[in-house]
Amino acid sequence: MKKGKARGISRPTAERLSEYLLILEQHLFCGKETISSKELADVYGNTPSQVRQDLFQLEKTGRIRHGYNVNTLKTAIRNKLGLENTTNLAIIGCGKLGSAIAEHVPFSSYGMNLVALFDSHKSLIGKKIGGVVVENVADLEKSVRKMKISIATLCVPPSAAQEVVDKLVSAGGVRGILNYTQRRLKVPDSIVVRDRQIVCSFMQLAFFSNQGI
Amino acid sequence: MKKGKARGISRPTAERLSEYLLILEQHLFCGKETISSKELADVYGNTPSQVRQDLFQLEKTGRIRHGYNVNTLKTAIRNKLGLENTTNLAIIGCGKLGSAIAEHVPFSSYGMNLVALFDSHKSLIGKKIGGVVVENVADLEKSVRKMKISIATLCVPPSAAQEVVDKLVSAGGVRGILNYTQRRLKVPDSIVVRDRQIVCSFMQLAFFSNQGI
Repeated sequence: MKKGKARGISRPTAERLSEYLLILEQHLFCGKETISSKELADVYGNTPSQVRQDLFQLEKTGRIRHGYNVNTLKTAIRNKLGLENTTNLAIIGCGKLGSAIAEHVPFSSYGMNLVALFDSHKSLIGKKIGGVVVENVADLEKSVRKMKISIATLCVPPSAAQEVVDKLVSAGGVRGILNYTQRRLKVPDSIVVRDRQIVCSFMQLAFFSNQGI
Repeated sequence: MKKGKARGISRPTAERLSEYLLILEQHLFCGKETISSKELADVYGNTPSQVRQDLFQLEKTGRIRHGYNVNTLKTAIRNKLGLENTTNLAIIGCGKLGSAIAEHVPFSSYGMNLVALFDSHKSLIGKKIGGVVVENVADLEKSVRKMKISIATLCVPPSAAQEVVDKLVSAGGVRGILNYTQRRLKVPDSIVVRDRQIVCSFMQLAFFSNQGI
């Protein structure tokens, strides 16, 4: 995976900004229209100076005397992260995890369109999940090209993971993969893979909570 | 959330070690009994020197001339992360995401016991998922105490999240929470919360893949 900076922000900053965005939305939902760097840091779990350093990299943050205007800050983060662009997305593997993602993740609120679902099970092909019809994974390459899909999520069994990824690569156009399988994937350097092995989150939580860090 | 070191390793090191472990298992599965720091770094996506620095903090790594013995290294990581301890775990919210975790995450292979599931829907209470019977969330506090549950996962709707967490806190004994809801939680400093908002992973992937970082 390549390392680097884009739009002048580093990878960790971009990660924090996406999480700040959800915190700001929660803050607005509670009827609070301003937020200080200390409040944001307390909820996120970092320091006010880190928050200010991150927000300093945005344009028009809505900085006011004792903090920020939440709506203006939200817009600034959305612009920086390019959430007004439209990214076409596919989910491959429509078992419980894939279906949960299709049904519950609010893609359209964050500049993404869920345009395709794939599975190999006859019982799922043709079914509608989260408003999208499940296609046969055998048609993956053709559909990925036709639907101009640029990011894909893998929720297939580990044994099928690399084969599916090879098809995504050969289809062309896919630039990012979110990998929920327990298998590490081989991809060309031009494709970004983010590994999200759920079992690792549990191992880390068990360790941190046992050690109190 | 508190910051710090435990057993002489930092939080990022512990996170990487848990991911190295899955890579080593995959390596063994492919019949490879030794691995070099370069091979491990190539799969993980960091540098050989970072890998060596992380592994240097383990005991008995199985260091051999051109790398490491995979089995010995696996054991060293498991020991460091305390995966031979037994941690009792509960999942709260047994919709598709909660059920997927209950059915597919191999907890017992990593020192954890899934001992309880909770939901508020009558159609789910009493049902067996991943070998465990779903209990009524109204009995949460009593069961958490009885089953000596120390880590919990939240897969409930955002509107129910804080209420469930307050019950977990008042039950006592819970030291870590993995939060899959889109809501940030208020907990005492003694409890570790790890936020895993799936939509953030998608925002980050869309951003990184658009920017090519």
